[in-house]
Amino acid sequence: MLKLNSHPSGRHFLQIPGPTNVPDRILRAMDYPTIDHRGPEFQQLGKKILGQIGKIFQTEQPVVIYPASGTGAWEAALVNTLSPGDTVLMYETGHFATLWKKMADKLSLKSEFLGDDWRRGVDAAKIEARLRADSGHVIKAVAVVHNETSTGVTSDIAAVRRAIDAAGHPALLLVDTISSLGSLDYRHDEWGVDVTVAGSQKGLMLPPGLSFNAVSQKAIAASKTAKLARAFWAWDEIIEANKNGFWPYTPATNLLYGLSEACDMLLEEGMQNVFARHQRHAEATRQCVRAWGLEILCQNEAEYSGALTAVVMPVGAGGERCNADALRKVILANFNMSLGQGLNKLSGWVFRIGHLGDFNDLTLMGTLAGVEMGLVLAGVPHKAGGVAAAMQSLQQSAVAVAAQPA
Amino acid sequence: MLKLNSHPSGRHFLQIPGPTNVPDRILRAMDYPTIDHRGPEFQQLGKKILGQIGKIFQTEQPVVIYPASGTGAWEAALVNTLSPGDTVLMYETGHFATLWKKMADKLSLKSEFLGDDWRRGVDAAKIEARLRADSGHVIKAVAVVHNETSTGVTSDIAAVRRAIDAAGHPALLLVDTISSLGSLDYRHDEWGVDVTVAGSQKGLMLPPGLSFNAVSQKAIAASKTAKLARAFWAWDEIIEANKNGFWPYTPATNLLYGLSEACDMLLEEGMQNVFARHQRHAEATRQCVRAWGLEILCQNEAEYSGALTAVVMPVGAGGERCNADALRKVILANFNMSLGQGLNKLSGWVFRIGHLGDFNDLTLMGTLAGVEMGLVLAGVPHKAGGVAAAMQSLQQSAVAVAAQPA
Amino acid sequence: MLKLNSHPSGRHFLQIPGPTNVPDRILRAMDYPTIDHRGPEFQQLGKKILGQIGKIFQTEQPVVIYPASGTGAWEAALVNTLSPGDTVLMYETGHFATLWKKMADKLSLKSEFLGDDWRRGVDAAKIEARLRADSGHVIKAVAVVHNETSTGVTSDIAAVRRAIDAAGHPALLLVDTISSLGSLDYRHDEWGVDVTVAGSQKGLMLPPGLSFNAVSQKAIAASKTAKLARAFWAWDEIIEANKNGFWPYTPATNLLYGLSEACDMLLEEGMQNVFARHQRHAEATRQCVRAWGLEILCQNEAEYSGALTAVVMPVGAGGERCNADALRKVILANFNMSLGQGLNKLSGWVFRIGHLGDFNDLTLMGTLAGVEMGLVLAGVPHKAGGVAAAMQSLQQSAVAVAAQPA
Amino acid sequence: MLKLNSHPSGRHFLQIPGPTNVPDRILRAMDYPTIDHRGPEFQQLGKKILGQIGKIFQTEQPVVIYPASGTGAWEAALVNTLSPGDTVLMYETGHFATLWKKMADKLSLKSEFLGDDWRRGVDAAKIEARLRADSGHVIKAVAVVHNETSTGVTSDIAAVRRAIDAAGHPALLLVDTISSLGSLDYRHDEWGVDVTVAGSQKGLMLPPGLSFNAVSQKAIAASKTAKLARAFWAWDEIIEANKNGFWPYTPATNLLYGLSEACDMLLEEGMQNVFARHQRHAEATRQCVRAWGLEILCQNEAEYSGALTAVVMPVGAGGERCNADALRKVILANFNMSLGQGLNKLSGWVFRIGHLGDFNDLTLMGTLAGVEMGLVLAGVPHKAGGVAAAMQSLQQSAVAVAAQPA
Repeated sequence: MLKLNSHPSGRHFLQIPGPTNVPDRILRAMDYPTIDHRGPEFQQLGKKILGQIGKIFQTEQPVVIYPASGTGAWEAALVNTLSPGDTVLMYETGHFATLWKKMADKLSLKSEFLGDDWRRGVDAAKIEARLRADSGHVIKAVAVVHNETSTGVTSDIAAVRRAIDAAGHPALLLVDTISSLGSLDYRHDEWGVDVTVAGSQKGLMLPPGLSFNAVSQKAIAASKTAKLARAFWAWDEIIEANKNGFWPYTPATNLLYGLSEACDMLLEEGMQNVFARHQRHAEATRQCVRAWGLEILCQNEAEYSGALTAVVMPVGAGGERCNADALRKVILANFNMSLGQGLNKLSGWVFRIGHLGDFNDLTLMGTLAGVEMGLVLAGVPHKAGGVAAAMQSLQQSAVAVAAQPA
Repeated sequence: MLKLNSHPSGRHFLQIPGPTNVPDRILRAMDYPTIDHRGPEFQQLGKKILGQIGKIFQTEQPVVIYPASGTGAWEAALVNTLSPGDTVLMYETGHFATLWKKMADKLSLKSEFLGDDWRRGVDAAKIEARLRADSGHVIKAVAVVHNETSTGVTSDIAAVRRAIDAAGHPALLLVDTISSLGSLDYRHDEWGVDVTVAGSQKGLMLPPGLSFNAVSQKAIAASKTAKLARAFWAWDEIIEANKNGFWPYTPATNLLYGLSEACDMLLEEGMQNVFARHQRHAEATRQCVRAWGLEILCQNEAEYSGALTAVVMPVGAGGERCNADALRKVILANFNMSLGQGLNKLSGWVFRIGHLGDFNDLTLMGTLAGVEMGLVLAGVPHKAGGVAAAMQSLQQSAVAVAAQPA
Repeated sequence: MLKLNSHPSGRHFLQIPGPTNVPDRILRAMDYPTIDHRGPEFQQLGKKILGQIGKIFQTEQPVVIYPASGTGAWEAALVNTLSPGDTVLMYETGHFATLWKKMADKLSLKSEFLGDDWRRGVDAAKIEARLRADSGHVIKAVAVVHNETSTGVTSDIAAVRRAIDAAGHPALLLVDTISSLGSLDYRHDEWGVDVTVAGSQKGLMLPPGLSFNAVSQKAIAASKTAKLARAFWAWDEIIEANKNGFWPYTPATNLLYGLSEACDMLLEEGMQNVFARHQRHAEATRQCVRAWGLEILCQNEAEYSGALTAVVMPVGAGGERCNADALRKVILANFNMSLGQGLNKLSGWVFRIGHLGDFNDLTLMGTLAGVEMGLVLAGVPHKAGGVAAAMQSLQQSAVAVAAQPA
Repeated sequence: MLKLNSHPSGRHFLQIPGPTNVPDRILRAMDYPTIDHRGPEFQQLGKKILGQIGKIFQTEQPVVIYPASGTGAWEAALVNTLSPGDTVLMYETGHFATLWKKMADKLSLKSEFLGDDWRRGVDAAKIEARLRADSGHVIKAVAVVHNETSTGVTSDIAAVRRAIDAAGHPALLLVDTISSLGSLDYRHDEWGVDVTVAGSQKGLMLPPGLSFNAVSQKAIAASKTAKLARAFWAWDEIIEANKNGFWPYTPATNLLYGLSEACDMLLEEGMQNVFARHQRHAEATRQCVRAWGLEILCQNEAEYSGALTAVVMPVGAGGERCNADALRKVILANFNMSLGQGLNKLSGWVFRIGHLGDFNDLTLMGTLAGVEMGLVLAGVPHKAGGVAAAMQSLQQSAVAVAAQPA
């Protein structure tokens, strides 16, 4: 096989905000012979997964699973519910919100963008105001990103729901949870979301290649009349076939093996524990960044992401801003760690530390030590002590019972 | 992990016509940590695969790889080249040709079906006649299936190309090779195909989850003006990003690891050897079926599939046709082998033996013995001797040099 | 990694009488990170295995597990129970009995060989006679092979026990079950065996690298005074450490992962079902050999092995005996199957078909078809019809309920 | 399979001084079907490994590979070269030297112990003096441990060789390199070692289950007359069979797959780079320990181990020495990391940090952070700043070229 890892020794630290480090249990679960997707054993697998997956989305409604990566699930959310020329109200929270908007335009929808602050989340009041102004109900859907992967800023989805309701507007609520599902607390039913979009390669700890639409009854009703052309992405045949544990066309069997294992792992740990674990690591990361004297991109503490932290590069000795990609290159070359790049208008300006998925305290400490050493080697101005601050944070929040004083 | 195999011992014989038996080399190649899909190691992987994959399609043109299963590549072929209301001339060779037609209709195209014989391949003369009659060039594309997975009948794609040319018609030629690519000789460039549709889970020996469009320059030109809405499936961004070995959105990294290995395996064996191997096993299978006194569904010897053989159930003692699904159930329960069911109007009437992918003589003999024993146990009238006929066929065509007489 | 399989396609048929085909479940169970062999997780693993392994030996007594291959367990049986110069009564049933005898001599024991027929098992009457003659109890142990891997002949261990008892002799009974444990019915306690020697790579379906001594209380008592020097093989420290689930020195952790899975698989299937499956496949194999008109090496039906069948090569057209190794070479080259060679004085004269371990009907049929085609290609005189006879045998003994007549 | 990891998330840090973290490449290389150990593919594997393994030992002489764990290779070194009652001069450097001595006694040798300092290595002058006094050449072998795994102290093997030569004594030199081979510079030929003992589960990065004797011609000559009983461990048959790439009895095939990969990995990295990497990580670890104000067990800087560091527990507030096992328990429970315990008379008094095998900077930093946080949680008196000191050390010795200042 192609030798991929050119680094001489040890395990690569994949600390981009997804794809995340796939745990051994999942890789091995996927390493089994493919079976007949129309046979009784597959049916058993399909029923198991479909019985578990809703718990991850906190929903009792159908969850459609695609043999496709996350971008496809964005498309599926739009083409199943909307008709050509329909207006979708979207919210510019960062690069991925922008990409989703561009996709809507390509799919012959009319998108409208609110907001322009890549350092804050959705302002629900703006959505409410816009919807109140739309007395003719031209807007058919509101589409927002729960956790903006490009910025490390989350948005308050429950507040968006309340805004729509307060405006008395019938628009559907579509939410991208690609980098939050399975990491941050997310409640499809309680928050009244109509379509939740998700992917396999972040909190679900799988390789990329599966994606999801959790759908409300209102969304299903909308799909009956929605006119955008669709076949591969059409919910109806999938939901119908799922009743028996099957899919209408060939599913990605081996990734489903992995999904079955991922569901077991998350439910064994307990979703509340999973969420708490992510928040704890995010807090330690922020303590570290602050101790370095560097700026966290997200400007609203209430909107900090538990999944990743984007860090703003400081101005260097020469008065010019240090380049994030040069730093990332030093870190990759010296410490065998991949960090997330700044995307779009954040290019060079920020780097992103992923702390989501199958992750624990010591991997976080290795990660932060790698960044701190990289700052030194790359000559980026900062204060020492970030790693020490993160250790203090983790010590304070350690959950295991300490042994008797030694 | 979910225990999938309820059978007490030994390896399952997955002899449906795909997904095929995934070889150990490929499963293990996929069982590696996911890497950063924007980093230098991924780039090396991307360039390697993109440099090899054309050899499998026998093309120098771009091959677009989707992180999606084969049905998606059908959709991609249509939405990249056509506009709403465009007419597509299709040819009813079986269940999958029919499904592709239904998809065209769902995607707001106007499909037209020639032919109705599920026991024969495409009659190129009919296509030529229809195209000659279309003096206004209303027909924008001709779409046919190279190897109809539901029937085990192939079609002569070069003849279809000649028919289009003879009619002097500008329609694009779209070809489904989902169950032939990597098993049967297929020549994207030489046969003048504009879009070749393929999937990972048959001759490429991978699990499902990747699919392909090999595209001609004419197809790319058509995509510039084609009006069907598209985003996930759009060729342009993918072809552009591929120049550097990357993809515009997250690719299915671990399946690409497997694809890299699959390309190595096929090219090591040599494509001509791969094709010859499939024809040899298909011939032995047909000798076996004939010796049983059973009928091969395909009625034209020139169109026999080298990838699978569909067998027609005989009439039983009571004067009623024996049921293929009852036979398949007996074989699965007794001999731990999955065979392909009859699809659509062939349901119960035929069963299908897959002999494609990672396959060899003794696995074929186990397969055929399982069918012969199943015929006995299920009380299906037949003559003994099929397995013996297959052995005779394999002996005669054995390629390894025999040792000196013992 | 070194590319080991030079064959172009499909799965190798490993039909030597061990190592056997390792099932995917076991290979994947072994593909996990090694853990601390002194930590709590290992302890859990150790206790689980030690709680299950006795059921395979049908014993309530300790089973000592070595991080070493089977030959080591032969040595362990001798050095734990005997003193330099002690006499061991052994029985020449084939190549492995002979090797064990040579080992005894190397270890400064005095071995004595009864029997000389490699086509029959142990004659318990000879043992009884010899022991009766040993009124001074010079003989300290009787050592026999349960299933002689070189010949496919089993011996009646219960009869040997009765012979020892009838002679009123205190000798220990040592039994090699390397190629029978987990395949043939074997009862350490009921048959009064003092040391049972076993290995991982046959009925236990593991790669080689683990071996076993199941020990009686009488054997343990003997070990207290036995004077042969020993350290690595010494039972006492292992049995002591096993009480807590540990081993005194580093165990072969990953092979133990596999053993844990193997125990689960065998106990899930049920030992009686495992034994019946082996007998059924052995019977079909013999029907096949007889139909070829070839001779089975084993001359006593009551002693046929359920694990392997050794076949005698016929005399060829030229009046000379055909060579088994030439045949095996033809089969390996043409059909990607490994068969067992004739060992020692059987070299060239017999070949051996392994039908043990993780095995099923269709793999057996592929195996026998490979031999039948090989006989043709190698020009070995035989009658056709062996495969047909095996199919008939398997049909008659098929255990799954047949579906209703189709 | 038995779920071994009870920890909720992320990868376990296995930082005992062996078994070490097995890299994915090796685990996957082992996850292949077992092959016929008498067939041509195995032969290719055997020859490859036997052609590479000497480079790891820096020898041109035979290296005997056992399908057994390391303790067995200790036994092999003794039983192949010595006769009952022979005197072996050994040197008490720690727990493992002591165990080897006990083994010698069990094997009916007469062992003599020099030294008694578990904080220093071998004093070659004492060996020279003792050998000079042995004018009758009663001493047949000198046996020392290169890297004492229980203490983190190395010994100067070249000096031992010089001592033997200076005394003009014919004794063989036997050296245990179980925790140094493949991590620390070790030269079997140049240092005139007669038998080098090694195991698979440390610097070779494999699971336990293989062990080694590299042997000199003098050792082979000794084996011709050595009288200790041996069979499984006997060199002669193995060396003879190895000439053709085979082994006389069933080898541990799948562990050999792993060994083949391990040799490739070490030789690709380059042995000098491997040694330098280990020294660099050891130096950073010691800087860390010193910054904590804790004592390194090894008292002679020239004898520091590059493979592990044993740390002495300080006296706590109450005037009693803090307990190392309580600390290790806190660290395992809170940070999912296994550290080495104090063995024998060091029990409770020291803990050991393994920094050998497949290891890199960030895994080291995670490791040291886990210890530092554990010291806090367990209430062990220490100074903060250890992790910071280690980062400084690694920064200074970073080998990759830094990018241009950001």
